[in-house]
Amino acid sequence: MTLTVMKFGGTSVADVEKIRRAAQRIEQKADLGEKLIVVVSAMGKTTDHLVELAGQISARPSACELDMLLSTGEQITSSLLAMLLKEDGYDAAALTGWQAGFCTDDTHGNAKILKIKESAISDYLEDQKIVVVAGFQGISQSGRITTLGRGGSDTSAVALAAAFKADLCEIYTDVAGVFTVDPRYVENARKLDEISYDEMLEMAYLGAGVLHPRAVEYAKNAKVPLIVRSSFTNEKGTVVRESVSMENKRAVKGLAFEKNVAKLTLLGLPDHEDTLSKVFNVLADRQINVDIIIQNSFQEKETNLSFTIDDASVPDAMEALNDAKTILGYSGMDIESDLAKVSIVGSGMASNPGVAAKMFAALNHNGIKVKMVSTSEIKVSAVIDESHLTSSLNVLHRVFELEGAVIVNQ
Amino acid sequence: MTLTVMKFGGTSVADVEKIRRAAQRIEQKADLGEKLIVVVSAMGKTTDHLVELAGQISARPSACELDMLLSTGEQITSSLLAMLLKEDGYDAAALTGWQAGFCTDDTHGNAKILKIKESAISDYLEDQKIVVVAGFQGISQSGRITTLGRGGSDTSAVALAAAFKADLCEIYTDVAGVFTVDPRYVENARKLDEISYDEMLEMAYLGAGVLHPRAVEYAKNAKVPLIVRSSFTNEKGTVVRESVSMENKRAVKGLAFEKNVAKLTLLGLPDHEDTLSKVFNVLADRQINVDIIIQNSFQEKETNLSFTIDDASVPDAMEALNDAKTILGYSGMDIESDLAKVSIVGSGMASNPGVAAKMFAALNHNGIKVKMVSTSEIKVSAVIDESHLTSSLNVLHRVFELEGAVIVNQ
Repeated sequence: MTLTVMKFGGTSVADVEKIRRAAQRIEQKADLGEKLIVVVSAMGKTTDHLVELAGQISARPSACELDMLLSTGEQITSSLLAMLLKEDGYDAAALTGWQAGFCTDDTHGNAKILKIKESAISDYLEDQKIVVVAGFQGISQSGRITTLGRGGSDTSAVALAAAFKADLCEIYTDVAGVFTVDPRYVENARKLDEISYDEMLEMAYLGAGVLHPRAVEYAKNAKVPLIVRSSFTNEKGTVVRESVSMENKRAVKGLAFEKNVAKLTLLGLPDHEDTLSKVFNVLADRQINVDIIIQNSFQEKETNLSFTIDDASVPDAMEALNDAKTILGYSGMDIESDLAKVSIVGSGMASNPGVAAKMFAALNHNGIKVKMVSTSEIKVSAVIDESHLTSSLNVLHRVFELEGAVIVNQ
Repeated sequence: MTLTVMKFGGTSVADVEKIRRAAQRIEQKADLGEKLIVVVSAMGKTTDHLVELAGQISARPSACELDMLLSTGEQITSSLLAMLLKEDGYDAAALTGWQAGFCTDDTHGNAKILKIKESAISDYLEDQKIVVVAGFQGISQSGRITTLGRGGSDTSAVALAAAFKADLCEIYTDVAGVFTVDPRYVENARKLDEISYDEMLEMAYLGAGVLHPRAVEYAKNAKVPLIVRSSFTNEKGTVVRESVSMENKRAVKGLAFEKNVAKLTLLGLPDHEDTLSKVFNVLADRQINVDIIIQNSFQEKETNLSFTIDDASVPDAMEALNDAKTILGYSGMDIESDLAKVSIVGSGMASNPGVAAKMFAALNHNGIKVKMVSTSEIKVSAVIDESHLTSSLNVLHRVFELEGAVIVNQ
């Protein structure tokens, strides 16, 4: 018998009317005799409201109590959805994370799933019940409620699909699938039928926003086939899986981007082996995430070091680096804000050496200056002025023929 | 070392500001070195909001899922309160009902506490933590979240006080204690310093509304000393305990009342031994609660039966009785609505035979007609027209000298 995990995100359960639509999808599958585990996020703005309540109490609320607070959001959705399924005559059971057997470590706010006690859910499945699980949460070994952090409900769904060897894990969201590029930026963005885990991972890390990279990694490791699809239409969605059929092996599969990028350059750093670790320790101590790093040694004793961070982290980073100026021994600092990172992603890229050159040439021909570059086996990222973001996405979408067979608007 | 259980009701934790005031009370006690278990209700209107959400889904939502939904209310309060205590530098731990060891039967919506696993809380107490427990909830033997029904958080608090042999159980609420009569009706109502469990039980059952009778019964059985007091002032409150000092042994301790009472009379019922059980089974099948019952046999073969129910139950009751007219065999039905029940309560009453007569005389002298009477060892109830409610309460308050030593406004 087919076992499917269905996950509905916050916008797909934003109000009772939307929960009703989610229930209809579930019931259609149940009518086909499928065994179903459903994972839900908190309703629309519920989590924001709870965070705001906690914010009234403390600027840094206790992580353990914050988890207990936030976990109520998904608990509310799961009980409402199960209530509705029962009202419609389907047998269902709503479970919190701990009731569903999610055992995690005790990193409150960003807990890692250690194991899923399958007996918790399998009894309900054997009773022919639709199991509705509150996503995003679990319980630590010391018996406290934990939450899984960003992308937590996606991860809950994938983890359940892996534990129960589900035939499929469907991620219902507010977009129709994974696109070659964000349709708000490029008019003829195209929905992909398929994408590999690795490509999806790069797209996810690079800000495509549809699926959290953590959930994709989990799916890749457990070989769980995913489908990303809209909860509001009957479109097919995008399949994320290991082996993608050959005709889809284009060099470039899609574009991703990030806005609000800032580039910091430290000039005249001493060229010692511990310079890099010293600099990035200073930043790590302030919880500042560094993305692209470029080091140029240009004389024997000195080096320039550039890296990108979030625009929002610039004041913190400047303060940290100023405080550590004597220890780090640099001579000057340069900051560029309002930058963006544009990336081309595709697993065919590794065997296609001309791809990066083609990207830079296209940007160059259109007057877009590339300020930094970073590459991996399946992506090339370029840092540019944010003002050039839309034009660069359109240029690259055209140059790499991402519109598909039918090219409109040209 | 003193162990106190403190319970804060919905109005005492209605918003973050009120939670802050509750926290200050808790901290004052913690500063004295007391061990503390705190029980909280849901914030103000939270439960109403959740019930309304469920109401959008079903007129009769699944009780099991409704419990899971409603239990989030107290979970939210307990995490916010513990967060605040920690913010103020006190060590605290928020626990849900199941985390606090509340094992119940599986009567969802009205679960009975079977036992409290003390180890759950005692570890935290040993760690010198203030334990903040979500009231009103527990977990069934099949692992589902249950709620304890009306007065549930009071019951949670008393049950914890009993399990941990607490020195005191303080019930913080929005009134200053237990009054001789509702101060909204009688100007010189007086706050009682002490009241016995049995008197409190009658007051509670008769609608005094301060403490739920179930919690009082629990306290009586476990001999837990209770204090009912305001969370907004430093007034002393009312002590509820077994032995009340002799000077307080007045015949009448206080007045209680209920509004929205209706009286139904079935005329010409056959005078068989199973008539009463048949009638009340018909009503019980529709979940209609019957309060006072009076039967008058006035000929050999027939009897008249009167009883009181809620005004709101009248249409249901009429339908049920009409449907069963042939089976029950009565000849006519009479209905009086807009009645009220007024009661005098006091444990000195049993040894004071003139009390009921004094009550009826006082009402009679003031032109208030008594329509039905019911008595127990420690109370006398009279059903009157609701339009006479305020005047009857004032008359009785004066006649039984409930104002205390100082009589104002006369």
